[in-house]
Amino acid sequence: MYEVKSLNEECGIFGIWGHPQAAQITYFGLHSLQHRGQEGAGILSNNQGKLIGHRDIGLVSEVFRNPGDLEKLKGTAAIGHVRYATAGEASIDNIQPFHFKFQDMQFGLAHNGNLTNAVSLRRQLENKGAIFSSTSDTEILAHLIRHSKQKDFMGKLKEALNAVKGGFAYLLMLEDKMIAALDPNGFRPVSVGKMKNGAWIISSETCAFEVVGAEWVRDLKPGEIVVVDTEGLHNDYFTADTQLAVCSMEYIYFARPDSNIHGINVHTARKRMGAQLAREFGHEADIVVGVPNSSLSAAMGFAEASGLPNEMGLIKNQYTQRTFIQPTQELREQGVRMKLSAVSGVVKDKRVVMIDDSIVRGTTSRRIVQLLKEAGAREVHVAIGSPPLAYPCFYGIDIQTRRELIAANHTVEETRAIIGADSLTYLSIDGLIQSIGLDTAAPNGGLCVAYFDGQYPTPLYDYEEEYHKSLKERISFY
Amino acid sequence: MYEVKSLNEECGIFGIWGHPQAAQITYFGLHSLQHRGQEGAGILSNNQGKLIGHRDIGLVSEVFRNPGDLEKLKGTAAIGHVRYATAGEASIDNIQPFHFKFQDMQFGLAHNGNLTNAVSLRRQLENKGAIFSSTSDTEILAHLIRHSKQKDFMGKLKEALNAVKGGFAYLLMLEDKMIAALDPNGFRPVSVGKMKNGAWIISSETCAFEVVGAEWVRDLKPGEIVVVDTEGLHNDYFTADTQLAVCSMEYIYFARPDSNIHGINVHTARKRMGAQLAREFGHEADIVVGVPNSSLSAAMGFAEASGLPNEMGLIKNQYTQRTFIQPTQELREQGVRMKLSAVSGVVKDKRVVMIDDSIVRGTTSRRIVQLLKEAGAREVHVAIGSPPLAYPCFYGIDIQTRRELIAANHTVEETRAIIGADSLTYLSIDGLIQSIGLDTAAPNGGLCVAYFDGQYPTPLYDYEEEYHKSLKERISFY
Amino acid sequence: MYEVKSLNEECGIFGIWGHPQAAQITYFGLHSLQHRGQEGAGILSNNQGKLIGHRDIGLVSEVFRNPGDLEKLKGTAAIGHVRYATAGEASIDNIQPFHFKFQDMQFGLAHNGNLTNAVSLRRQLENKGAIFSSTSDTEILAHLIRHSKQKDFMGKLKEALNAVKGGFAYLLMLEDKMIAALDPNGFRPVSVGKMKNGAWIISSETCAFEVVGAEWVRDLKPGEIVVVDTEGLHNDYFTADTQLAVCSMEYIYFARPDSNIHGINVHTARKRMGAQLAREFGHEADIVVGVPNSSLSAAMGFAEASGLPNEMGLIKNQYTQRTFIQPTQELREQGVRMKLSAVSGVVKDKRVVMIDDSIVRGTTSRRIVQLLKEAGAREVHVAIGSPPLAYPCFYGIDIQTRRELIAANHTVEETRAIIGADSLTYLSIDGLIQSIGLDTAAPNGGLCVAYFDGQYPTPLYDYEEEYHKSLKERISFY
Amino acid sequence: MYEVKSLNEECGIFGIWGHPQAAQITYFGLHSLQHRGQEGAGILSNNQGKLIGHRDIGLVSEVFRNPGDLEKLKGTAAIGHVRYATAGEASIDNIQPFHFKFQDMQFGLAHNGNLTNAVSLRRQLENKGAIFSSTSDTEILAHLIRHSKQKDFMGKLKEALNAVKGGFAYLLMLEDKMIAALDPNGFRPVSVGKMKNGAWIISSETCAFEVVGAEWVRDLKPGEIVVVDTEGLHNDYFTADTQLAVCSMEYIYFARPDSNIHGINVHTARKRMGAQLAREFGHEADIVVGVPNSSLSAAMGFAEASGLPNEMGLIKNQYTQRTFIQPTQELREQGVRMKLSAVSGVVKDKRVVMIDDSIVRGTTSRRIVQLLKEAGAREVHVAIGSPPLAYPCFYGIDIQTRRELIAANHTVEETRAIIGADSLTYLSIDGLIQSIGLDTAAPNGGLCVAYFDGQYPTPLYDYEEEYHKSLKERISFY
Repeated sequence: MYEVKSLNEECGIFGIWGHPQAAQITYFGLHSLQHRGQEGAGILSNNQGKLIGHRDIGLVSEVFRNPGDLEKLKGTAAIGHVRYATAGEASIDNIQPFHFKFQDMQFGLAHNGNLTNAVSLRRQLENKGAIFSSTSDTEILAHLIRHSKQKDFMGKLKEALNAVKGGFAYLLMLEDKMIAALDPNGFRPVSVGKMKNGAWIISSETCAFEVVGAEWVRDLKPGEIVVVDTEGLHNDYFTADTQLAVCSMEYIYFARPDSNIHGINVHTARKRMGAQLAREFGHEADIVVGVPNSSLSAAMGFAEASGLPNEMGLIKNQYTQRTFIQPTQELREQGVRMKLSAVSGVVKDKRVVMIDDSIVRGTTSRRIVQLLKEAGAREVHVAIGSPPLAYPCFYGIDIQTRRELIAANHTVEETRAIIGADSLTYLSIDGLIQSIGLDTAAPNGGLCVAYFDGQYPTPLYDYEEEYHKSLKERISFY
Repeated sequence: MYEVKSLNEECGIFGIWGHPQAAQITYFGLHSLQHRGQEGAGILSNNQGKLIGHRDIGLVSEVFRNPGDLEKLKGTAAIGHVRYATAGEASIDNIQPFHFKFQDMQFGLAHNGNLTNAVSLRRQLENKGAIFSSTSDTEILAHLIRHSKQKDFMGKLKEALNAVKGGFAYLLMLEDKMIAALDPNGFRPVSVGKMKNGAWIISSETCAFEVVGAEWVRDLKPGEIVVVDTEGLHNDYFTADTQLAVCSMEYIYFARPDSNIHGINVHTARKRMGAQLAREFGHEADIVVGVPNSSLSAAMGFAEASGLPNEMGLIKNQYTQRTFIQPTQELREQGVRMKLSAVSGVVKDKRVVMIDDSIVRGTTSRRIVQLLKEAGAREVHVAIGSPPLAYPCFYGIDIQTRRELIAANHTVEETRAIIGADSLTYLSIDGLIQSIGLDTAAPNGGLCVAYFDGQYPTPLYDYEEEYHKSLKERISFY
Repeated sequence: MYEVKSLNEECGIFGIWGHPQAAQITYFGLHSLQHRGQEGAGILSNNQGKLIGHRDIGLVSEVFRNPGDLEKLKGTAAIGHVRYATAGEASIDNIQPFHFKFQDMQFGLAHNGNLTNAVSLRRQLENKGAIFSSTSDTEILAHLIRHSKQKDFMGKLKEALNAVKGGFAYLLMLEDKMIAALDPNGFRPVSVGKMKNGAWIISSETCAFEVVGAEWVRDLKPGEIVVVDTEGLHNDYFTADTQLAVCSMEYIYFARPDSNIHGINVHTARKRMGAQLAREFGHEADIVVGVPNSSLSAAMGFAEASGLPNEMGLIKNQYTQRTFIQPTQELREQGVRMKLSAVSGVVKDKRVVMIDDSIVRGTTSRRIVQLLKEAGAREVHVAIGSPPLAYPCFYGIDIQTRRELIAANHTVEETRAIIGADSLTYLSIDGLIQSIGLDTAAPNGGLCVAYFDGQYPTPLYDYEEEYHKSLKERISFY
Repeated sequence: MYEVKSLNEECGIFGIWGHPQAAQITYFGLHSLQHRGQEGAGILSNNQGKLIGHRDIGLVSEVFRNPGDLEKLKGTAAIGHVRYATAGEASIDNIQPFHFKFQDMQFGLAHNGNLTNAVSLRRQLENKGAIFSSTSDTEILAHLIRHSKQKDFMGKLKEALNAVKGGFAYLLMLEDKMIAALDPNGFRPVSVGKMKNGAWIISSETCAFEVVGAEWVRDLKPGEIVVVDTEGLHNDYFTADTQLAVCSMEYIYFARPDSNIHGINVHTARKRMGAQLAREFGHEADIVVGVPNSSLSAAMGFAEASGLPNEMGLIKNQYTQRTFIQPTQELREQGVRMKLSAVSGVVKDKRVVMIDDSIVRGTTSRRIVQLLKEAGAREVHVAIGSPPLAYPCFYGIDIQTRRELIAANHTVEETRAIIGADSLTYLSIDGLIQSIGLDTAAPNGGLCVAYFDGQYPTPLYDYEEEYHKSLKERISFY
């Protein structure tokens, strides 16, 4: 079964401090972050200093399938996690939050992001006798904390946060406090909210605040540590050497349209990307059709800016999340239509602008173009709401090689031919930065656009060698 | 967990004759009809005259969870069914297709619709010794066939089809043929399609043809019987006393936007309803917001006709199909937001036209208005793409009492106040008929609009008394 | 995985009238009858005239896995059933009790036994328009009742009981009474018990009385109908043409040793069979080893009568009920040892009398002899606590062809050679009848021994032709 | 649901080196060790140096429910484990074999026994930065190995084995070898076997050899390490300071009767205990009844030595392993009879010697005496095949407090009165030692009898204080 989109986020985190139904609110919070990871989920609650966890493979609603699964998570604070596993086989050992128990203390840990020096750190720790219980890089922070010679937990934590490199948003639950920390570039979004009863919330995205009835307070800053305990919320920094570089793919594709990141509404940013794309687009057309659901905002923006009518020319089947039956080879072509159908009555004899947010391997785009043409579209002009995706990401998106990226191996014209479109237009990098409009003073407007231009905001550490090797390859696929 | 929509269709049918992967194609077909029934599904295949079935409670993908579930359904023909159960408890006994086995023959049966004389017929049959194995009215046809004194199966079937009253689309699989039959008013849609290899398809909606790679041939006519066997497709009529009265709710809400019913594309019809609604609307506003997903077409039409921008002011969480955890009473208000969120950045300080397809009890509308207002909307003008729903349906929609219908018990102004809107506009009946544009010569344009005006196209039989009693009640709820 | 025993009973029934925890007591009762059927189970309770059922494939403890499964079965009366399915594929349609619902009444039905004229009756009923919902012969009684022209239910039931032929113990639950009925030969045991609170119990075996704390009252007589209602227990007869012929295999193998059938304790009868077998045995030996668990009583009797020590030379693994993994062909020989092991320290260099209750195909006996020899037994003398099993049973045991019976196709000496024993002794038919000691005045001492001598106590009806054909075959297997 | 026996072993281990179906043979081996632990199971296979594991909560047949569970465990060597969890909640984190992965190596570890200095060692290791992923004391060995400064793995392992104290049988799988090690007292049995193809087997009990078709080679000696690799089997000792003290409860209750421990057959030893018990018994009686299944051997010995007939007066329901439904309070008394029934026809009016292997809390004995009396036994003389259980065990049996032991708190006469017996006889310690007959020259005949006399063969380390405190308490229960 093909996936409509093959770009994957690596996790979402949610935490709460100070509510009698902490675990249940975390459940709702994770549910609203489900789009950030569908392979596993877990919650760890804090019941007067005693931590209790439940985690498993599956969607949030599957992991907490039985009433007892949540009921056992008593307490007034909790942290939760949804996971997308990059490795082939999903193992419960890697599902978070992790729960570390010692004779003198215990703590829970959840993580969104990817470390660039995980292999080196793990080797160093193992040489000191450390035993890792998972293959996740998340566990490294715990070992660094326990091996630190600093006196108190905060000292150990800061030392550990300075040792790890790359993209990370950590959420920790201790017996007497909840802690969130963000990497020096702020690659991943983390927001602080507050409920009417005074409970503090930490969430990967602000859409969770709406769901649980909390108000947004502010977003974490690069290098910041936020601590919530019985005395309220405090903050600190583990480093002053910071430079904002928010992952631009959060705005383009990952985040939910109703979330705001650093004050910018995602839907609105996408509409602006669509509008800008219309301005950069140079072809005649009759109607605009967005690929559901991710590209509907951009399609709205494109339609408004271009004056073309926005039509529902593609329908997504709402019941596609889990299909256990694989079609036989003969039926594969039919099978792919289970997820998306073209509406013949809408596109027939029309020159269609098909709006999508990005192209990864090109397979999906090729199939959608074909669907539209089979449904009678006279021309299909593909317009993409982001620049060509040509370089891997090492900070938390599941693209770690250039091999799979069509734009890393083909020119725009070659790509257009492969996907069978009548024209192909990408949004320019400048157009993207301008549309998001985050921080005009900062380099790249405060965004990470490394997957578009190959300019990484940090050293690559363990990935350095592999990356440079990959630059020399040019793979022709199709 | 509240349902965004509480109107429920009663089933979808799909059949195929003449393909080596008949069961698998039926699986894909049922998948595309999943919106017509989510409580159970089944497939019955025909392997050289031997019928084999598999059915269970759950979505199509759940019922056919294991590869063996489909593999055992060998053969070159198959019929399938998706079911919405009106009764509280879903029982596997009621899941279709039914499989009737006799020492001299066997046949399978699937049904979409509702009989109005089911109670009387069942009583008569039981008095003759009949034992029913389900509580479904579908089974009645089988008993009528077996008790008929006609000589051959077609004769028995025609006699039985003349005995049942109300709305019905039947699909039968015999050892040597597949048969479809439609009631004399054609309340439910049934279409015939054809695959490239010559296989014939019967489906409740044409969207299934797209998915399995078939071409639409034609729709069944009221009173028609279609037979497919090794010699191809034949047709016949069991009655000449027919009058087209297609359920208008199929166009308004049930059918998938990419389906065509009697040649009218559903999305396009909805756009026209939205446009007509804009013309009937009399208030000032800034933006148009459709309730996802069912009202997005109408919102497009409204926006185009009114010149107002169409915005994504409400977001539907894609991961809401199955939630096993019920929120505690305190958290119920948070819980309802799991399915739908208002986008504050879009609606803040705006006068919003909120487009929905219909209002049943008003509960959902009231909550969505509240979501929008909490998100900062200055005014919320509710515009409904259909007339007030004030009468029950006895032909296959799950509204069998006026008690639950807010429009049966309150004026438009009262309803407006209850849902907390600044204004409330319904589409007129004439506007609806005109927008669909099915058959201008026929009464009500060939549509059934009985839930709007109480004028039923057939006698009500067993429901007569109950219906008239209900007309005298006026229930004030809220 | 081979089965230690391949003879299978066809069901157990249990009913209760007059207890606030009727369903839970039925659960315990069925649990104690689990040995009579392991493929499915169900309970139907009577809550003030409303019948509610739950049934599924699996052991009693699996079918009632969730607390709600039993809790929903409210009421003060209930009937239950455990099923062994003769047909290859277990289908939930055949799991009992059946629940028949009509507009004017409803009733539940459970059955232990096998009808000899099921095919004829079904054909006749279908010709009258009847539709069967299962392939079970149990359903026939319900159709006969409904087609009867008698005035009241008891009249209809009696007419139906006279129409069905063969072995049957029926248990019915009506809105206002519970009814048990036994065939004119009393092939299957049915007992009546009473609890301290006055509740009446019907059970296939008396072992269930012990478990639920009831006292045995009496056993049903051939041709008897017992009715329990609010006025207590009444009885009646549907026929006077009766002749007791209790299935002797109940004493030999099926029934639990702690049950009494017509006043004879099963364990004690088996000890007597063992003692008689010792008297008929003519070989030198050192120790007696019973095949666990079914032959331990006979081994005790043999040891006492012969003066030889009774030893635990074979151990049955207690954890063998469900093994999902099939061994590869290479490991099959190892796999068979998962269920039974020979104790080398006990049997080494000994001349062993291996006691088993019966030989069906001979496969199991051959393997056990081999196990004992590999464990060092010098000689293995097989002594069987019943006569050679040479004819099929048509009254409720799963042997419907002579093909599978080694004694139908081979002499005792041939059988001995096939199973690799040093000698083979069967109990004589007279010895068996005398050991059980049921009713010396009746033919065959009141027992059915047809599987030993081919003399059936009733006409065979639908099986007549098939049976006579089978007599002419002599199949050599191995 | 009460347990017939509440003494619990803590695990069984099984390993194989040199067979193409290593995992499947381990499956069969674990199945035959299932009685040593029913709460979880796992297998870790070695596929050319790559270790792959599968483990879960449940019986072996449940953990390996799907064919793929075993199929994925490719390779020619494997270790397996069945676990009984002492802690209340079974957690998958504690299910073994553990799999420790490092960048430079990996190994698997399984353990049977209990460490007496686990708390101290864990504290020391955590102070060095160690993070434990389970609450099992098994994991300690792995951390000791990794923190050891010895050069090679065998040196590290020996250092670790000298640091852990108490009862332990370890089984390790490395990339290139399998290692077994036994504590200096040899508390737990570990045997070496060999298959015909040359594969080496390590097993907690010899009964597994029979099942997989292997021959017994020898038992591990106290302080011994056995290594199996491509060059065959080698051995070594990690300490010379050893003293054989085999857990006598292995002979009395835990081990399967067909196992041999240090050359002594368990069934035969139990028969001798029964015979010796008869000699120490001083009452008149009519019949001997063993409590099934554990006391049947002792009952045979008692019957032979006393000349009394051995009768089946108690029947165990074979279908009791998993019952999900809990009886209501009113039905609890009925519920207890689901597992065990007294045979009235056997015990009525008899003076019964009821043989059991041990008394823990007395609850079960009291209930069985009551069952026998209700079934009509005139007198019930309880004779126990072991001495009074009065002290906790710290080497691997789940009795860690004296509170629960009736013999620690009551005289024999008080106990007799509590359980309602007419007399109560325990086997003497000397009688036990003599009956087993292991090593007459060694202290206590080479056995650990500490739970009977409070004389522990090793220092108690972390348990010292707690133990002495418990000696001062005298708890009256009932």
